[in-house]
Amino acid sequence: MLSTPSVGVLGGGQLGRMMMEAANRLNIQLNVLDAPNSPAKQISAHDGHANGSFTDPPSMRRLAETCDILTTEIEHVDTYALEEVCSKVKVEPTWRTIRTIQDKFNQKEHLSKFDIPMADYRELSNNTAEELAAIGEELGFPMMLKSKTQAYDGRGNYSVKTKADIPAALKALENRPLYAEKWANFTMEVAVIVVKTKDGVLSYPTVETVQEDSICKLVYAPARNISDEINQQAQALARKTVAAFDGLGVFGVEMFLLPDNSLLLCELACRIHNSGHYTIEACSISQFEAHLRAILDLPIPAQSLEIREPAIMLNILGGATPEAHLQVAERALSIPNASVHLYGKGAGRPGRKMGHVTVTARTMEEAERTIAPLLEFVGGANPESNILYTQTLPRLNVRPTVGVIMGSDSDLKTLIPGLRLLRDYFGINPEVEITSAHRTPEYMATYSSTAASRGIKVIIAAAGGAAHLPGMAAAYTALPVIGVPVKGSALDGVDSLYSIVQMPRGVPVATVGINNSINAALLAARILGAFDAGVQAKVEAYAKTAKEENLDLKGVKMKELGWDAYHQQM
Amino acid sequence: MLSTPSVGVLGGGQLGRMMMEAANRLNIQLNVLDAPNSPAKQISAHDGHANGSFTDPPSMRRLAETCDILTTEIEHVDTYALEEVCSKVKVEPTWRTIRTIQDKFNQKEHLSKFDIPMADYRELSNNTAEELAAIGEELGFPMMLKSKTQAYDGRGNYSVKTKADIPAALKALENRPLYAEKWANFTMEVAVIVVKTKDGVLSYPTVETVQEDSICKLVYAPARNISDEINQQAQALARKTVAAFDGLGVFGVEMFLLPDNSLLLCELACRIHNSGHYTIEACSISQFEAHLRAILDLPIPAQSLEIREPAIMLNILGGATPEAHLQVAERALSIPNASVHLYGKGAGRPGRKMGHVTVTARTMEEAERTIAPLLEFVGGANPESNILYTQTLPRLNVRPTVGVIMGSDSDLKTLIPGLRLLRDYFGINPEVEITSAHRTPEYMATYSSTAASRGIKVIIAAAGGAAHLPGMAAAYTALPVIGVPVKGSALDGVDSLYSIVQMPRGVPVATVGINNSINAALLAARILGAFDAGVQAKVEAYAKTAKEENLDLKGVKMKELGWDAYHQQM
Repeated sequence: MLSTPSVGVLGGGQLGRMMMEAANRLNIQLNVLDAPNSPAKQISAHDGHANGSFTDPPSMRRLAETCDILTTEIEHVDTYALEEVCSKVKVEPTWRTIRTIQDKFNQKEHLSKFDIPMADYRELSNNTAEELAAIGEELGFPMMLKSKTQAYDGRGNYSVKTKADIPAALKALENRPLYAEKWANFTMEVAVIVVKTKDGVLSYPTVETVQEDSICKLVYAPARNISDEINQQAQALARKTVAAFDGLGVFGVEMFLLPDNSLLLCELACRIHNSGHYTIEACSISQFEAHLRAILDLPIPAQSLEIREPAIMLNILGGATPEAHLQVAERALSIPNASVHLYGKGAGRPGRKMGHVTVTARTMEEAERTIAPLLEFVGGANPESNILYTQTLPRLNVRPTVGVIMGSDSDLKTLIPGLRLLRDYFGINPEVEITSAHRTPEYMATYSSTAASRGIKVIIAAAGGAAHLPGMAAAYTALPVIGVPVKGSALDGVDSLYSIVQMPRGVPVATVGINNSINAALLAARILGAFDAGVQAKVEAYAKTAKEENLDLKGVKMKELGWDAYHQQM
Repeated sequence: MLSTPSVGVLGGGQLGRMMMEAANRLNIQLNVLDAPNSPAKQISAHDGHANGSFTDPPSMRRLAETCDILTTEIEHVDTYALEEVCSKVKVEPTWRTIRTIQDKFNQKEHLSKFDIPMADYRELSNNTAEELAAIGEELGFPMMLKSKTQAYDGRGNYSVKTKADIPAALKALENRPLYAEKWANFTMEVAVIVVKTKDGVLSYPTVETVQEDSICKLVYAPARNISDEINQQAQALARKTVAAFDGLGVFGVEMFLLPDNSLLLCELACRIHNSGHYTIEACSISQFEAHLRAILDLPIPAQSLEIREPAIMLNILGGATPEAHLQVAERALSIPNASVHLYGKGAGRPGRKMGHVTVTARTMEEAERTIAPLLEFVGGANPESNILYTQTLPRLNVRPTVGVIMGSDSDLKTLIPGLRLLRDYFGINPEVEITSAHRTPEYMATYSSTAASRGIKVIIAAAGGAAHLPGMAAAYTALPVIGVPVKGSALDGVDSLYSIVQMPRGVPVATVGINNSINAALLAARILGAFDAGVQAKVEAYAKTAKEENLDLKGVKMKELGWDAYHQQM
């Protein structure tokens, strides 16, 4: 850092602009090649920028002379010019990587050598209807017809639903080099931002992307309703994919999650990526700063790539009027915990990325609730902006924080008061399952040992008699386990109580009174409430209501009626 | 926003630069008056800026002509020039407010009309030693001698410890208008960023500032070890102080917290403030964006001013060499969850504010642990940088998260194994107290009802016999309470167990086995660990060790020795 080299950037759009924000904070000079007053140049007043196109070799050569290291915010650059200058200036990632990735067919051909799972695909050699029909027979319908090059934000893709679509598809993509891809019947599109450094390959968490007409619309970070295992698998696949290429910097990797929970690579970009905008607010180091740190060999603490708080990113697209996107931005200013980014692109055009909004919150559920009015605004309620987004809103999907297990359904009636209290009073929908320490020991072990990674914070376990379930669950998890002793047919529940409370040193169970599922539920709420002010306020309100009931209702009534009459009416 | 007016800013230092960052994101044009290439101008390429000094009336008039609204990043501006232009352009805050606040004596005179608690003070009329000695008799020693005007970052203040310091003090501040202030024997310096909008006065949470030679060095957000009550009182005092002035925008309010928990106003600034830099990472709307939103009458959701995660901000000051500050910045790049800000000021000068670092974490304790190596770096371990900060480091002040209470010291021996496990294995130093439900019912009630606001997340309560303490503590708090039944002289501890576990519906106690303080400690760790990955990893490691001990040590040994020999050596 003491002798930071100056960095040349091919392209000064919104990605370059956000990289400039990061560079400004670290006092790193970025020399941008793009049109005068492009978004990135607007926020950098030094005189080292170059005017011209990032696809124009002479301009590229001119930029190369002003800097020690060259990078890019876009893959559609002239890689032959890069190849030419790379003896004089470091280019990151390498021209070879950019050349391979900018042709999506070559990208797939390259990755197929590295054992990366991908949807099946076929090259078109003469772009005729007969050829595509034959491929359709092989891959099945629907299938995707794609341009090998110059494809982004949906341009260059055509979904061929049936054989009848073939002429229109070929017409839409005429004069382009094409390939066809088998349709991936995914349950979710996920993405991972990968950072390739001199020392290794790091990754941000797995996020969920919602695309509309192949344009990224929404990003949920982290992805909702996926297990930690899938999160880890997606990150591992993304890192493996990026490791197949040379050079340093940030890569955006898009994948499909299939119904059987396996993953397919969709495609990758050798640059900072729309699916990583959430990192500005949600992580300590944004993807833009990570890119600069990676190419300049500055340290990147892995912890700084973790998500500090769940986030939802919404792209602000140009609408029917040149100012439609400003209405969305203006509405976003009233949304709590929303950060608004406008890219300085002037007048909007339909579908153009003009800015974005990121909402963070303590929980994904809260983030979803917070951004809902903005999604509604862009989704249709407002007649002037409904041109932006037409699809139905993604459903509000809440990850449970309390797991409730019972050894047998005969314990359910004991648990019911507690379950209802959690759901109806606290608004906490627990995950409820039957698993027995004795009858399903393996499932009990799996359930307990994966609970933390599913987002569970506390487990309630009910059991009677020998009552091993709470203690065995505690043996398989590091989470707090609350035990509810259930009164059986003999010994008045003392057998269950002793079995649950008298655990050996090392494996605690938080035991409540016999049959007292209300207290188990309240204890779970107190545990969540210690870290969630909203829940704690409800615990306090519950106690207050109980107090008032005792003092004002029952107490006053007994005074009015006298103890004898009160007893008679009980 | 659709027709955002352009904003003129007096001053383009680091405060203006960070305001520019916020303005860039919202595509608001800021026209800055300052020297060419000043920090704020570096990150804004438009041609609306003005060159000149923010104290020079002709330059100020020139800037006023380029914009619809004028604001300032510094209070030392020419308020007569502002008064003159305010008929043509909106000035926020008003010239009258700036004029009153830029003279600290007038500031106090003004605030004394609004019932704001302040340290006693006296004006000097002829700056003689006799006059100051007489004031010293009245106010007592030590006292502060202060310049009324042009005082910032410690310049203009002199602490007069005894009468003997008087000549040196008057010499240091000669030719300045002076006043003396009674010494505030504070326990903590706190600050609050206030936002005055058209509709009312909002505030960010109360932070703790650590000053050194009157220069802000560290900010802890939120302030450590203060109750929510004091947090609210400090915010209320700050809002009341700001409400005494005209105009819109952000104000920085500094206060003293006294040993009796009362608050005194120290001083306020009518601008964005060093104590609010933490808001960039820790809040959804930074103080810089809040200032712009306030003066442009854009919405500010109150929730966006809350702290998302605890944060610590460290100023990076210039050191003995022009590049000493860069060494601090470079070291900070390796600190996890640290955001580094450099202000583009070029070569450093001793004591000059060159940048800052903000570390965020899930808990303040984690933030303190994370930033500790950087504090050590600037504090002296490194011979090249110890010139930056010479004072001893603020003690690592970890707020306890576990409260342990016992009815009598006879219960301590039972608790010892658990206490040692928490301290020595988990690194969690609990707050340990004796309080009895029967002998000290009021203190028990106070202790329990204030625990959450002290930062406690879980309480462990041990009791024997009638064993009311855990249940009574639970009745006074919304936190989870873990009960340890202590075996007494009769009934083998079953009396204690029943008293603790069989709580009525509505008030749960998490009961562990009789005398099992180890399990109480582990349960507390599991509860903390559900929300703190570091603690959860230790819970897992503890279980792994126990497993290995059982399998590898004891199991293998019994196989080797045979059960009979094993028994003999036990």
